[in-house]
Amino acid sequence: MSTSKPSIPKGMRDFNSDVMQKRNYIFETVKTAFERYSYVPIQTPAMEDISTLTGKYGNEGDRLIFKVLNSGDYLSKSSFDKDIKSSTLTKQISNKALRYDLTVPFARFVVQNRNDIVFPFKRYQMQNVWRADKPQKGRFREFFQCDADVIGTESLLCEVELIQIYDEVFTNLKLPNIDICINNRKILTGIVELMGASNNFDDIVILLDKFSNLGLDKLILNLKEKGLSDNSILILKDFLNIKNIDNLAALLKDSSIGMKGVEELLFVMNSVSNIGLNTANLKFDVTLARGLDYYTGCILEVKNQDVKIGSLGGGGRYDDLTSIFGMQDISGVGISFGIDRIYLVMDELNVFPKDIGISNQVMFVNFGDKEAQFCLPILKKLRENGINTELYPNPDKMKKQMNYANNKGVKFVILIGENEMNSGLLSVKNMQEGDQYTISVQEFIKQQL
Amino acid sequence: MSTSKPSIPKGMRDFNSDVMQKRNYIFETVKTAFERYSYVPIQTPAMEDISTLTGKYGNEGDRLIFKVLNSGDYLSKSSFDKDIKSSTLTKQISNKALRYDLTVPFARFVVQNRNDIVFPFKRYQMQNVWRADKPQKGRFREFFQCDADVIGTESLLCEVELIQIYDEVFTNLKLPNIDICINNRKILTGIVELMGASNNFDDIVILLDKFSNLGLDKLILNLKEKGLSDNSILILKDFLNIKNIDNLAALLKDSSIGMKGVEELLFVMNSVSNIGLNTANLKFDVTLARGLDYYTGCILEVKNQDVKIGSLGGGGRYDDLTSIFGMQDISGVGISFGIDRIYLVMDELNVFPKDIGISNQVMFVNFGDKEAQFCLPILKKLRENGINTELYPNPDKMKKQMNYANNKGVKFVILIGENEMNSGLLSVKNMQEGDQYTISVQEFIKQQL
Repeated sequence: MSTSKPSIPKGMRDFNSDVMQKRNYIFETVKTAFERYSYVPIQTPAMEDISTLTGKYGNEGDRLIFKVLNSGDYLSKSSFDKDIKSSTLTKQISNKALRYDLTVPFARFVVQNRNDIVFPFKRYQMQNVWRADKPQKGRFREFFQCDADVIGTESLLCEVELIQIYDEVFTNLKLPNIDICINNRKILTGIVELMGASNNFDDIVILLDKFSNLGLDKLILNLKEKGLSDNSILILKDFLNIKNIDNLAALLKDSSIGMKGVEELLFVMNSVSNIGLNTANLKFDVTLARGLDYYTGCILEVKNQDVKIGSLGGGGRYDDLTSIFGMQDISGVGISFGIDRIYLVMDELNVFPKDIGISNQVMFVNFGDKEAQFCLPILKKLRENGINTELYPNPDKMKKQMNYANNKGVKFVILIGENEMNSGLLSVKNMQEGDQYTISVQEFIKQQL
Repeated sequence: MSTSKPSIPKGMRDFNSDVMQKRNYIFETVKTAFERYSYVPIQTPAMEDISTLTGKYGNEGDRLIFKVLNSGDYLSKSSFDKDIKSSTLTKQISNKALRYDLTVPFARFVVQNRNDIVFPFKRYQMQNVWRADKPQKGRFREFFQCDADVIGTESLLCEVELIQIYDEVFTNLKLPNIDICINNRKILTGIVELMGASNNFDDIVILLDKFSNLGLDKLILNLKEKGLSDNSILILKDFLNIKNIDNLAALLKDSSIGMKGVEELLFVMNSVSNIGLNTANLKFDVTLARGLDYYTGCILEVKNQDVKIGSLGGGGRYDDLTSIFGMQDISGVGISFGIDRIYLVMDELNVFPKDIGISNQVMFVNFGDKEAQFCLPILKKLRENGINTELYPNPDKMKKQMNYANNKGVKFVILIGENEMNSGLLSVKNMQEGDQYTISVQEFIKQQL
């Protein structure tokens, strides 16, 4: 029995009730929007077969997957050299790993349940994922992902509705100044093709992602180091200067994949403009690239203009996700919400509703056994009318009981002593306004509804 | 890239949307009850330091804890013999483990955050736990626990309110014939004391737990094998024959701890009877023992009379839980809901509400680009009025689109073709009643509210 103060592993978090209630408010808002657009919920297990996960996130990703030790006497069937390497040993003693994201398990789910699923399949999934990343501000080893994807259709109407969902969620969260940046991987493919630099596609994409930090001069320097010709760089400079889609079409007219990207972009932007967004701004951003992910069409990223914290969400279309599990030609498109960052921005901008956390509306003071027994049936009546309430469990000093009520953010404290037991009325103290009054149970319930 | 059909580890489960929606219905019902009684939510991380968990669940429990392999080149700082045992190696290569229950992490949370918590602390926690148990019907390696505990008070009013919560949840779930069995560990301690068999307390408790399966004769046989005297066994037989609490008090009058148990039991049962339960039956059960858990006072277990599947929940008072982390004299009491079993019983008794899963109220048929663009602003209006709706993403054959709607359990299919675009009216097909009619957008919205 250790008596040292306990702790939790680095990068992990406890959530107290104040934080939980704010997080739940964000979860509920996202969930409601997903359901409003007819996405249905699924869940996958925390642990997957290690073979399901490895090789799907690149070498760096593989390193960051948490592996679970086999149970029982796991060495009994192994024999190994004392100089064995970690990576070799891992294969012998671990066949399960923790979920690293929601996308690969979703692809596995779709392939495994392909005969029970009616396509197009619109699902949402809200679960924790785990990564053995170096913890830092805003980056944790356990964090929550909220994903919505449509799989089994190439229709660009899906892109349109996912943009609407972003708008709806951030509007309902009352987060102002939201930019939904949009681009298309086919446009990037097209411009790189025109630059004659298709072999350098990954390098260029990575540099574009960093463009806002690098600036044009450093970007050019980097491209030269990668061996790109002056002419290539000139074409890219033209591309980066583009302010409207007409100019883009002119620049890309000799690349058929590029023109396909322009066409897709136009369809999505025109459709969204036809419907209208509530508060968010849809902005074409030529520098948006979304790193080395599996995207093949439309790409999206959400930012708040006021708080510099990176993206609050992102997504895009991928043409071939399920092929990693042997199911070909299934196009999909999805978005993700970064709950932890959304929480930080909302906290910084102070836009959480004031009444979050006042889940406890009423506390009854405990004056002793007789009074407590008298109170219990009244509490029952209040609860039957949907009022959250509790009786303080001990006949402690009034100061201690009021301190408890204050700390818990209770709205009303009810006092029932000798007088109230005789009259059948409640003495109510409004903890926010400070006033105190006498009222019947029925009237009090009516007030709360 | 493997092309074999993917699978998931044994004892793990995918949840499709039908199951998820039923599970969410249970979760929401439990959560609402917890909040009605002013419990506040907390969460703890999936991984704890291994030292937090080991030694808390007995030897068998330790074996069933899932350990997580250290990240990176975990062997670089280890050297070991090639004949090393699994248990020794584990200590060198794993310092984190997965949550095994919610109680020990809660105790850790309370001790770690003792300065920020106002006691008595009423918290609820609804999270997955993981156990490397042999999977079988109704037993999984990942399952959901829903716990509510009060910590920092000895008041028996907590026991009373936890019984009310059980009643409220099962009443709201419309699960009939629920027995809430109650006993008190002090009564068991008292009777074992009178038997002069305090050294055999654990044996007796384990046998009592199995009494309904064993029957009296086998129980006596087992007790004799454990070396109990005839006189001891006679006292236990009297105890097992007890039908009311007056007789119990007479039997236990010479054991002060036993009499304390009777007093506590009477207070709780009388208070509950004063308030009244909605549908559940509170039943004193002398054979209820709750195994080798840490309970020290009132113990509870919930059963459904119709389906033989074991308990749907259980709990009790523990006087010393936080002392394992060095914080003494903090009494607590809590209950747990067994969500997986509740699900199975509700499914078997067919008491889930019929409209669960009809989250998708309305589907618009897709007749082509022009019609789709015409529909989009109408979908927006419906969603603004809280109606879950979607536009089928492709202009597929009508049969395919209607099949999709049927499979998803859509209530209304809306058809907008040339005529409807001219008239501005909707053609609505009610998928449950089968009738079809024409209606304005405004009128349709009114119908749904």
